[in-house]
Amino acid sequence: MTNNSNKAPIGVFDSGIGGLTVVREIAARLPGEDIIYLGDTARVPYGTKSGRTVVAYSRNNAAFLVSKGVKMVVVACNTSSAVSLPSLTGEFDVPVVGVIEPGARKAAAATKTGRAGVIGTPSTIKSSAYKRALEAASPGIMVYTQACPLFVPLAEEGWTEEDITELAAERYLAPMRESGIDVLVLGCTHYPLLKKTIRKTVGDGIALVDSAEETAREIERVLTERGMLNPQTGPSSKRYYLTDVSDTFVSVAGRFLGEKIEKIEMVDITGAAV
Amino acid sequence: MTNNSNKAPIGVFDSGIGGLTVVREIAARLPGEDIIYLGDTARVPYGTKSGRTVVAYSRNNAAFLVSKGVKMVVVACNTSSAVSLPSLTGEFDVPVVGVIEPGARKAAAATKTGRAGVIGTPSTIKSSAYKRALEAASPGIMVYTQACPLFVPLAEEGWTEEDITELAAERYLAPMRESGIDVLVLGCTHYPLLKKTIRKTVGDGIALVDSAEETAREIERVLTERGMLNPQTGPSSKRYYLTDVSDTFVSVAGRFLGEKIEKIEMVDITGAAV
Repeated sequence: MTNNSNKAPIGVFDSGIGGLTVVREIAARLPGEDIIYLGDTARVPYGTKSGRTVVAYSRNNAAFLVSKGVKMVVVACNTSSAVSLPSLTGEFDVPVVGVIEPGARKAAAATKTGRAGVIGTPSTIKSSAYKRALEAASPGIMVYTQACPLFVPLAEEGWTEEDITELAAERYLAPMRESGIDVLVLGCTHYPLLKKTIRKTVGDGIALVDSAEETAREIERVLTERGMLNPQTGPSSKRYYLTDVSDTFVSVAGRFLGEKIEKIEMVDITGAAV
Repeated sequence: MTNNSNKAPIGVFDSGIGGLTVVREIAARLPGEDIIYLGDTARVPYGTKSGRTVVAYSRNNAAFLVSKGVKMVVVACNTSSAVSLPSLTGEFDVPVVGVIEPGARKAAAATKTGRAGVIGTPSTIKSSAYKRALEAASPGIMVYTQACPLFVPLAEEGWTEEDITELAAERYLAPMRESGIDVLVLGCTHYPLLKKTIRKTVGDGIALVDSAEETAREIERVLTERGMLNPQTGPSSKRYYLTDVSDTFVSVAGRFLGEKIEKIEMVDITGAAV
């Protein structure tokens, strides 16, 4: 079941909680849109799993959202965007938007030195997906990458501007600062929470590109082009599904989303035929 | 297929890599024992998942090891030990040993102040499994617990004695130091790698109990009681199975195991009937 009605909700999935920063940006930019969020907390994280496995999980997730009648699927997970976007785009009738290309295009357009940095989870960095997207957007661009495995637990602890966060940022980002980049992509949906510390560490000469923000812009562009923006002016609705009970999700979600989640629904999709 | 031969291997499973610290201690204490290790890297980590899900995964893992003819199943994962041990013990004919009770018993016997501390992942701490095991071993004991979510990524980064590690340890352990405990259980298989920093932070007045060491002792006790110790004096063999390709496993395993892993075999158990 697919839905091309402009009144249908936007479907967003992530392996867990990080995609809520994308929901936050969609809600800020497109307040009339209803959203259905799926956090695959039973199988989080995707970053440590093989491409084949991540594609299978992502197809599960997208199929669930499409079965709920969404008009668009947003892959709010860098790992999944890196490996599963071609497969999902070919499989479903609704438009599929990932989080990598919007940020990469913005960074490619913004750099004046022709040098861009990308930080993300080990799997996102290892996939080279940002590097490829940056090179496609701007042939000849120099790309500097750095995996930052401590940033996710720091964001989830809420230690976003502490000594320990500054030390971790210094270790990860000092080489970036020296590399001559003038733009840095936050290539993980958790990282916007650490933006102040990252800003302080790299200095004002490096523009930060927030993938969540750029993805919301891309969603607006795609929906506008297709005449699929929701015309409603009343309050929009958001539904949150998880594949497993997650206390972290409940306790931490507010920081990621910027508002409290009233209700979470459980769903078992792991045995779903895709 | 179960195996009661003393020459059969010991089966060890963990959600990922942490259980290798238990393999290391078994090999040190019982060098004649062959070991089959299963790291469920396709579904790691267990700590964020519900009890029901962890029990299902643990039954998968144990069934796989039993199908390989092991004489004992070692649950080298605190989360799984906390929730699935009763279910596994009832289901398989071979003895099943977890990592929680051995450490808890040691700590209960060692404390003179009657106050014990436990550190672990958020899920292990939340399960109260150590608290229950300590209270069972020593009624009236006071138990102080602290979840330390940054310790796992710090151990995997290899940042075991750095400024950042000391800051994290200070944040997590300062209240422990003030609580009057004289024994602290390292209730996560990753934590032995951070032992020096933990020691420095809590001071010499608090004994550290390493769950991996105590589990190896327990394995020796159970096998000895049942006359199932392997009599071989030649070199023993170790086989490593993973449920998904994991670069972290390959790159980090040496630090956990204390030796290089020559060969890793992939196995798909996620669809296994249990």
